[in-house]
Amino acid sequence: MVRYKIIVEYLGTDFNGWQRQSSGKSVQSVLEDAIFKFTSENVHVYGSGRTDSGVHALGQVAHFDLTKEFDEQVVKNATNFHLRPHKISIVDCKIVQEDFHARFSAKRRTYIYKILNNNHPSVIYKDLYWNFYKRKLDNNLMQIAANLLIGHHDFSSFRAANCQAKSPMKTIDFIEISKEGDEILITITAKSFLYHMVRNIVGSLVDVGVGKITIQQFEEIFYSCDRNKSSPTAPACGLYFFNVEY
Amino acid sequence: MVRYKIIVEYLGTDFNGWQRQSSGKSVQSVLEDAIFKFTSENVHVYGSGRTDSGVHALGQVAHFDLTKEFDEQVVKNATNFHLRPHKISIVDCKIVQEDFHARFSAKRRTYIYKILNNNHPSVIYKDLYWNFYKRKLDNNLMQIAANLLIGHHDFSSFRAANCQAKSPMKTIDFIEISKEGDEILITITAKSFLYHMVRNIVGSLVDVGVGKITIQQFEEIFYSCDRNKSSPTAPACGLYFFNVEY
Repeated sequence: MVRYKIIVEYLGTDFNGWQRQSSGKSVQSVLEDAIFKFTSENVHVYGSGRTDSGVHALGQVAHFDLTKEFDEQVVKNATNFHLRPHKISIVDCKIVQEDFHARFSAKRRTYIYKILNNNHPSVIYKDLYWNFYKRKLDNNLMQIAANLLIGHHDFSSFRAANCQAKSPMKTIDFIEISKEGDEILITITAKSFLYHMVRNIVGSLVDVGVGKITIQQFEEIFYSCDRNKSSPTAPACGLYFFNVEY
Repeated sequence: MVRYKIIVEYLGTDFNGWQRQSSGKSVQSVLEDAIFKFTSENVHVYGSGRTDSGVHALGQVAHFDLTKEFDEQVVKNATNFHLRPHKISIVDCKIVQEDFHARFSAKRRTYIYKILNNNHPSVIYKDLYWNFYKRKLDNNLMQIAANLLIGHHDFSSFRAANCQAKSPMKTIDFIEISKEGDEILITITAKSFLYHMVRNIVGSLVDVGVGKITIQQFEEIFYSCDRNKSSPTAPACGLYFFNVEY
């Protein structure tokens, strides 16, 4: 068997998330179908992490095995041909060692959350940002709050009720709030995340950014380890699975 | 009568261009219908310039008259309410003097053309860029060619066959090619433009960027005043009507 590593871009709006389901269109099932169309092989595509419905990817990573060795560019181009008109695209394809695993070999994952902080409902970028247009966000305050999260902590305050992780302990390596014009980007890197962790963190950071909660209150919420105290989950449409390091 | 000036954002993909037509959905007709819904007044919305099907706007300007004086914010918010779910949004609304005319008072118009010069078919940004992914563009060469266009010239080489302007003479005040990551932006400012002028210029600049024509050939094509010698029209999806100065 030959193992292929692919980097995948998709528009989350069009899919019921990453994972193949009994009904609805998932990223995984559309990829598996496209690969079947040019190889006639039924493959299982393993992703480095699942994404929810509406969440986009610029650099999701996945792997699959084929009995035949194809040229990497052929796999990329033929899969892209059969993926049309679905809003999924293979960015890159490489043949890797058989012990490579998209999920278990991953060392760090980076998500970017995009907020459009203008003053009117945006129609052009509607599905590509959280269009937060009613009040201005203070990105400097958001960064001060975000800095508290860096390191190894109990992230129960930002953990979805149905999270299946064994432990709420995670390590955030990097979190940066950058602003250019009306665009605020929250970049966050960790080995792995709890379910809804990024979107729950963003929800509370935005409440800091509008002055609804203070830095001190944010810190108390974080250390309380109580999801009921933190803010609502930020919308899926602003979240991008940006890349995976191995 | 009270005259209102509005700044309008829209996703061109969803419309048969700016102008009201006997069939199909136009930006103008959707705006006029939304204004009617909260004012019960049949207005004519005058745009600062027409845009083709697929061409977007971040800062199209228009004006219309109402018998009643409303608060500017009320006009903005009520129109936006009635515009849903159409992908048009009022960015700003101001009451202006009765001699203000969106088209005839305009001093300068700026368009931005967006190219995504990556190496795979992009699905997320498909309708928002010209996704030029097969070859790398040399933005410095494109800027050298673009500089030749600045000033008052005969733009016949970049004029669509069905252009209705009386003269092919136009004055380009500013043209800049900027690059950030995979994104190449062409910003171009003039008092007014010929029909398809921006997209025809971009078509030829891209041929310079890939080395298909040299700077000298670009110059010869420009001075030939012959549309048959220049390159194909760049796709509508990359073009944004950015703003109007008065």
